[in-house]
Amino acid sequence: MTLTGHMLIGQHTVAGNRAAIRGIDPATDAVLEPAYAGGSAEHVEQACALASAALDAYRETTLSGRAEFLQSIAEEIEALGDELIERAHAETGLPRPRLQGERRRTCQQLRLFARTVRAGEWLDVRVDTAQPQRQPLPRSDLRQRQIPLGPVAVFGASNFPLAFSVAGGDTASALAAGCPVVVKAHSAHPGTSELVGGAIARAIKACGLPEGVFSLLYGSGREVGIALVSDPRIKAVGFTGSRSGGLALLQAAQVRAEPIPVYAEMSSINPVLLFPAALHNRARALAEGFVGSLTLGAGQFCTNPGLVIACKGPALDSFIEATAEQIKRQAAQTMLTPGIFKAYESAVNTLTENSAAHIAAQGQIGSGPNQGQAHLFVTDAADFLADHNLQAETFGAAALIVQCASDDEIRQVTEQLEGQLTATLHLDDADLEQARALLPILERKAGRLLVNGWPTGVEVCNAMVHGGPFPATSDARTTSVGTAAILRFLRPVCYQDFPDSLLPSALQQANPLHLSRLLDGHREALAHAE
Amino acid sequence: MTLTGHMLIGQHTVAGNRAAIRGIDPATDAVLEPAYAGGSAEHVEQACALASAALDAYRETTLSGRAEFLQSIAEEIEALGDELIERAHAETGLPRPRLQGERRRTCQQLRLFARTVRAGEWLDVRVDTAQPQRQPLPRSDLRQRQIPLGPVAVFGASNFPLAFSVAGGDTASALAAGCPVVVKAHSAHPGTSELVGGAIARAIKACGLPEGVFSLLYGSGREVGIALVSDPRIKAVGFTGSRSGGLALLQAAQVRAEPIPVYAEMSSINPVLLFPAALHNRARALAEGFVGSLTLGAGQFCTNPGLVIACKGPALDSFIEATAEQIKRQAAQTMLTPGIFKAYESAVNTLTENSAAHIAAQGQIGSGPNQGQAHLFVTDAADFLADHNLQAETFGAAALIVQCASDDEIRQVTEQLEGQLTATLHLDDADLEQARALLPILERKAGRLLVNGWPTGVEVCNAMVHGGPFPATSDARTTSVGTAAILRFLRPVCYQDFPDSLLPSALQQANPLHLSRLLDGHREALAHAE
Repeated sequence: MTLTGHMLIGQHTVAGNRAAIRGIDPATDAVLEPAYAGGSAEHVEQACALASAALDAYRETTLSGRAEFLQSIAEEIEALGDELIERAHAETGLPRPRLQGERRRTCQQLRLFARTVRAGEWLDVRVDTAQPQRQPLPRSDLRQRQIPLGPVAVFGASNFPLAFSVAGGDTASALAAGCPVVVKAHSAHPGTSELVGGAIARAIKACGLPEGVFSLLYGSGREVGIALVSDPRIKAVGFTGSRSGGLALLQAAQVRAEPIPVYAEMSSINPVLLFPAALHNRARALAEGFVGSLTLGAGQFCTNPGLVIACKGPALDSFIEATAEQIKRQAAQTMLTPGIFKAYESAVNTLTENSAAHIAAQGQIGSGPNQGQAHLFVTDAADFLADHNLQAETFGAAALIVQCASDDEIRQVTEQLEGQLTATLHLDDADLEQARALLPILERKAGRLLVNGWPTGVEVCNAMVHGGPFPATSDARTTSVGTAAILRFLRPVCYQDFPDSLLPSALQQANPLHLSRLLDGHREALAHAE
Repeated sequence: MTLTGHMLIGQHTVAGNRAAIRGIDPATDAVLEPAYAGGSAEHVEQACALASAALDAYRETTLSGRAEFLQSIAEEIEALGDELIERAHAETGLPRPRLQGERRRTCQQLRLFARTVRAGEWLDVRVDTAQPQRQPLPRSDLRQRQIPLGPVAVFGASNFPLAFSVAGGDTASALAAGCPVVVKAHSAHPGTSELVGGAIARAIKACGLPEGVFSLLYGSGREVGIALVSDPRIKAVGFTGSRSGGLALLQAAQVRAEPIPVYAEMSSINPVLLFPAALHNRARALAEGFVGSLTLGAGQFCTNPGLVIACKGPALDSFIEATAEQIKRQAAQTMLTPGIFKAYESAVNTLTENSAAHIAAQGQIGSGPNQGQAHLFVTDAADFLADHNLQAETFGAAALIVQCASDDEIRQVTEQLEGQLTATLHLDDADLEQARALLPILERKAGRLLVNGWPTGVEVCNAMVHGGPFPATSDARTTSVGTAAILRFLRPVCYQDFPDSLLPSALQQANPLHLSRLLDGHREALAHAE
């Protein structure tokens, strides 16, 4: 397939008329063809008009019809074959096996969402039947289902060019909910975006859906993004990226006449607590696991473990020593973009110049451009508590170890943390009560708590929470990974005293879709159709 | 019980140090004793500190412990007896039977929420069990539950001094979710607020809960309200009131460092569509039902039917004539406050002066202060479409009938409506297809759709949606009435690979709380304990 450098507005390829974006191979700084001319507010207008026109038809697709569409997107992405992997590799510097794994995850996610759409739990059907004889007043028949919010704007992320980008979690969950999607492609991988956007457009055509269900826009400046968030037809925003980027979208949404939800997944340093018995019994194994998670993908994971909290002493000394050894052996890795590499260098320099933190180890220096070198810093709890800057996210393979003098200092450090995507506890049986005492704080701070694992793997499943209190996200009530991500794009509607034939099929008395229902306050036993 | 004029900060009565509020009997303009000196930012600080300190203990009360607390509040409110009804009657001018009904509703709501807390559906338990053999990577054990957001600020409404005020839906749902609550009392009924606040404080003491679970503040200006919404320990806001009031709170929340959800239920004109066959067959009965709903409680319901949409013709003429007759017979009613009466008069004058609308009927003039006189206006669809001001909410017993020339004009008028709490359809069998064609628009516009009923009754149940797109509310994803209101104050937390003994009981493998669970994607059959 030849890349065109054009946007996709519905089924039409459209050339932009603003400054062009070009992919850059971060391993060589080579500029890639073709150029992607940016869109303008007018293109946003066209895409939103199509999305709005598609809404009522798309949101009433049958559960199986919508599920087949999601599966079809997965098939079209797989059919792109090696071209997708090669282009993504060229644009991101990520190793091919990692990209193959990410493609698998992206397609599995679409298929899981297809199964979830079919099962229909997300409709949260609630039925309260009429009580005509009730005193002093009769009760009406009341039935509730969830309907889609409307067209959704999605901003692709740089660090997962497949799983968190054009057909990533935000797009997949919005489409699963029944919302048309307008994607603003991340400028770091325009070619990958075009390939995946084309796959979605083909799936739309194959499934006979209205073309406005999906559009893909480019833009190097703020014009397209701000116009998109400001368009009155857009009813929600999904974003994964930097804190400053997320806050800019939040602000654009706040000046709208009609407030809309902005789901921005932003910044997290993912604290890891090492409890005494675990640290004493397996400092070296912990160091190995830690460095593996820290340096995965050049440290460019939202859930990268950037902060370690533990009590001072010989066990922690052993851990630091073993970690430092490992870090020193780490080869430099190509970072995603020259911009991310520069930001990483700058953040590491800031930490290096901070007298409260000292460098315990550095990884190997790379040759060639954009080579991220791993870093390990150590500080004391008192310094950490005194300097809020030590909580800033360093996007890359750099971590800070906070040495505490007492359990009370561990508690203080934990209580002072900002909101996080994850918090990790490494513990042995003897640590259980100490861990239990910290749990209430950790629950208030993070969306996901892990025991004896590492936070960088984010399973796509029903129970996952990839979210958390601000600034981890802009909306702690939600997750951007897993099937509960679909719930972000829904709102409830209640139907009172409707004749059965006028009700949507999800709410009809005979339950023709075999949905799980809350019937007069009780979870109804399901007579499975199969 | 003697009213003190003091605030409640935890278990302590505290005198304010700002300008005093006094209840006013709107039927006589008499000023009521005692004076309620307003609180300051310092009192907000004290209440929020207590609420924050109470959070971890309160949110881990057992389901039955929390349910008993909610029941205990209902009992304490009932134990206030006639004193509560008399004081609320004096402060609001609402008839005693209406207040008795509202008290019944308030207590039933607390008891329904108690049953809902016990049943535990709101915990939305999701379990994905470990798959250690999975290729290429094993899957961890992942479990999700909902936990409370944190302390909640509640702003009482004027129009339901019991059901939407100190112990109303917002407070009850936040407490049910496990959130401590700080209420800013509505200045229109300070004595009623003190009585109900005392009932909650006694329930807290009786149940042995931390005192910070509830505080009640007064304040005539913006100081208390803005300080409350701005306090970093407050994690969500519930409000029912005017559009300007709701937007002011939204704005205060937007300048916080950490964004928080603001659930403001604001403005709705609750369109009623009269379809041809229904109008032809029962114009007179429709007129009776309509006027009954319009004038209920002097028209001071959020769901008051302020807009009627129908096709021109003899049937609509009959309806207008019958409605006008009824309106003319309507006695004036005492409105809630001098301020609401003045705003109503002003809105009616604005409509009267609008050349696009003409007065079809006026109710009887009352004697004495604050007597709201019912009004009926008529306009044409073309004028309605041309003048957005005709969509402004008139809080009181005034309605506008929009005469349409065609089905297409009905569609245009409906499509141009702002977001609404409700939309009502009056239809007979012959109208079904015409109604069906409009449903997609109505679903996008409103939170609750009714057939052949009137919107002013809002049932407290599982399927209710008292919410809707902006400006009906600031967050269309939610309801402020019914058990789903609890979900507004929760966020998900995921526990990965936790030893069973470290898990909260809601997530333990043996399901000791007998909760409905989504287990590996399937709704688990429940072995009931009873």
